[in-house]
Amino acid sequence: MSTELAHRGCGSSEGGVASPSRAAGKAHRGRLDRWLAARLRHELSQVGVGLRLWNDPADAEAPSGSAGDLIVGDRRALLGLMVNPELYFGEAYMAGRLHVRGELAPILEALCRVRPPQPTWIDRWRTRLARPNSLPSSRRNVHHHYDLGNDFYRLWLDDQLVYTCAYFPEPDATLEEAQRAKLDLVSRKLQLRPGDRVIEAGCGWGALALHMAREYGVEVKAFNISREQIAYARDRAAREGLAGRVEFIEDDYRSVAGRFDVFVSVGMLEHVGRAHFRSLGEVIRRTLDPQRGRGLLHFIGRDAARPLNAWIRRRIFPGAYPPTLAEVADHVLSPFAQSVLDVENLRLHYARTLAHWSRRFAAAGGPVSAAHGESFRRAWELYLAGSEAAFATGWLQLFQVTFAPSEAAPPYWTRANLYTHARV
Amino acid sequence: MSTELAHRGCGSSEGGVASPSRAAGKAHRGRLDRWLAARLRHELSQVGVGLRLWNDPADAEAPSGSAGDLIVGDRRALLGLMVNPELYFGEAYMAGRLHVRGELAPILEALCRVRPPQPTWIDRWRTRLARPNSLPSSRRNVHHHYDLGNDFYRLWLDDQLVYTCAYFPEPDATLEEAQRAKLDLVSRKLQLRPGDRVIEAGCGWGALALHMAREYGVEVKAFNISREQIAYARDRAAREGLAGRVEFIEDDYRSVAGRFDVFVSVGMLEHVGRAHFRSLGEVIRRTLDPQRGRGLLHFIGRDAARPLNAWIRRRIFPGAYPPTLAEVADHVLSPFAQSVLDVENLRLHYARTLAHWSRRFAAAGGPVSAAHGESFRRAWELYLAGSEAAFATGWLQLFQVTFAPSEAAPPYWTRANLYTHARV
Repeated sequence: MSTELAHRGCGSSEGGVASPSRAAGKAHRGRLDRWLAARLRHELSQVGVGLRLWNDPADAEAPSGSAGDLIVGDRRALLGLMVNPELYFGEAYMAGRLHVRGELAPILEALCRVRPPQPTWIDRWRTRLARPNSLPSSRRNVHHHYDLGNDFYRLWLDDQLVYTCAYFPEPDATLEEAQRAKLDLVSRKLQLRPGDRVIEAGCGWGALALHMAREYGVEVKAFNISREQIAYARDRAAREGLAGRVEFIEDDYRSVAGRFDVFVSVGMLEHVGRAHFRSLGEVIRRTLDPQRGRGLLHFIGRDAARPLNAWIRRRIFPGAYPPTLAEVADHVLSPFAQSVLDVENLRLHYARTLAHWSRRFAAAGGPVSAAHGESFRRAWELYLAGSEAAFATGWLQLFQVTFAPSEAAPPYWTRANLYTHARV
Repeated sequence: MSTELAHRGCGSSEGGVASPSRAAGKAHRGRLDRWLAARLRHELSQVGVGLRLWNDPADAEAPSGSAGDLIVGDRRALLGLMVNPELYFGEAYMAGRLHVRGELAPILEALCRVRPPQPTWIDRWRTRLARPNSLPSSRRNVHHHYDLGNDFYRLWLDDQLVYTCAYFPEPDATLEEAQRAKLDLVSRKLQLRPGDRVIEAGCGWGALALHMAREYGVEVKAFNISREQIAYARDRAAREGLAGRVEFIEDDYRSVAGRFDVFVSVGMLEHVGRAHFRSLGEVIRRTLDPQRGRGLLHFIGRDAARPLNAWIRRRIFPGAYPPTLAEVADHVLSPFAQSVLDVENLRLHYARTLAHWSRRFAAAGGPVSAAHGESFRRAWELYLAGSEAAFATGWLQLFQVTFAPSEAAPPYWTRANLYTHARV
């Protein structure tokens, strides 16, 4: 990305005819800009990111940072980065008032290293005081993100539209292979047996429900509150002759009723919100058979509790909160007499998944921009690259937690056959 | 075990010459006994355990409970069981005032099912108010249990004296095979590479340290405050020609200094005590290399926080506390910027390990009784069978937690090669 692009957003704030007093004011602002930039430049230089302002001389064409450069397009962007970088980095980037020279993901990875990933007491309190997701707000939040249209997601997801962390048996597996491997890994961890009755909470476009029914002969009730996804999933079940074994239900997970052998939820917990962890735990307890039951939660998590990035919450995932492992153990599982059997952290697999998505998203840039506008495209470009950076650097984790009612026998003797009997 | 045994302990409290007033008192006490016994019998019958008193007619020879019977030897034992069964079951059993008809472990398993395993608020407060283990009290506690003499442990442990949960690749593996498999599973989870510098905190008789050095070519500093164990371990290292690569240090884990690639601790965390979790976390942070480091904690844990059984704390493990996964994540790992990579719950493997130990311990009953006395033998018999029951029923868990500094790359891409490349 060239410096020309970086200059695009700053013409209006800096143009105009000079008069003596305006010239003095401009000189004063220029000194302030340089002073602010020097402070920011010092901090960024620690992690190998350079900084250029809209009015820097254009002679320095090579990136000054080893990871790449940030190119600040105007004074407003510069002030935003000083005052609240977490929010205004994204705001400025999507508005085209902030650009990069070099690749976006490595620059964001470097930025993830600016501050040590330990939360402050403010983070902890903001976490506790976050507003709970009511049923209507859950619907709004899900609609905001997941009802952007199946056509949009088809542009850059895999052939089954799996919008959660994939599992790459080998690092160079294709995205399609890795998503199928993930569906099967989850099925194996749950030790599915023909005839098992399975609840899936938050089923996306239905790929996991259909995989479990097709490959393991189980019966699935799959819940989702996104109308477009449910419609797609039902259609696919009918086409594949699985409609008799998989029921897609357009409803909230809190409406689940009855007894089941298996409870599984992939990529929903981070949208549940801290205040509703106990309702989820209650649902798990009342639906899982106490003797034969077992379950799996797959979710984006954290090492330490802190709110999700403010810009991501504003623009991408309203109401989302990635919990710590301890929060899930203490609020979703332990009070409802569930034992943790297995936890696997797949954060590097999510970084790789996101790298695949970013590549496909970049290739689909024209259609995305045409359908949703350029600032939407830039927001999603940043969200995908930023998430990749967060998983690559350990700001975010991806946990798969297998559990069972305390009194139930664990579903397998050792984990070995999860790996020696992989079907995919 | 016959009812005759059960009667042995009650002669002194119930014998004597009858007089009219003494006879009335005796009749009164007899009614009280029967009333108390009826209440207890009702509770026990829910889980298939029968109850017989010292003065029940001897005609009923078959156990009345499907799991077996408790035979209460005197009034003191009966009152103890009513007032504080957690403490006085063990006290009465070791004193020979409480016996069983049937196998001990299944009866204890049944008893584990009497109360639902959810802790009360009293449990939670007792957990928080427990006195911390100072250095002198740690030494006393460890001495109490581990310095009973190597000869004692040699009677019933495996050939390498590994006194922690084994790992049975197949359920019918021998104890020796399963302990070797555990040492190797831990080594594989840590992805040991030749030349790695390893800290082991709480090394027992040294089997893991020696396995890691011998099989993986690493250098180990192994800490333990039990003098007898350290002496045994040093001797074994010298005999095996590994003294140059394994240093056994008679000191507390809090004295560890320097930077290392690997931190491992098997079966020590449950003796650290809640108040010192943060000191352990601090040790982990300052010793682990932030880029290449990784670690493993293997410990007895719980689903929900509650104090260890009162009798076990009094007679077997003073100062011990099995933590929840959330406590370990929140107090040992997360504040010290460590990421959980993998958790495996091996509780059924510990139940099986304990069954092996119980069998060998029973076979060594004569020598144990001769060296330490019959009440010691009964106490240990109960402790081993009770622990087996606790792990079998989910009252206790066995967690292996693999972790790494947040910024370090996880040591492996998938867990598959932990299972496809097992050396043992």
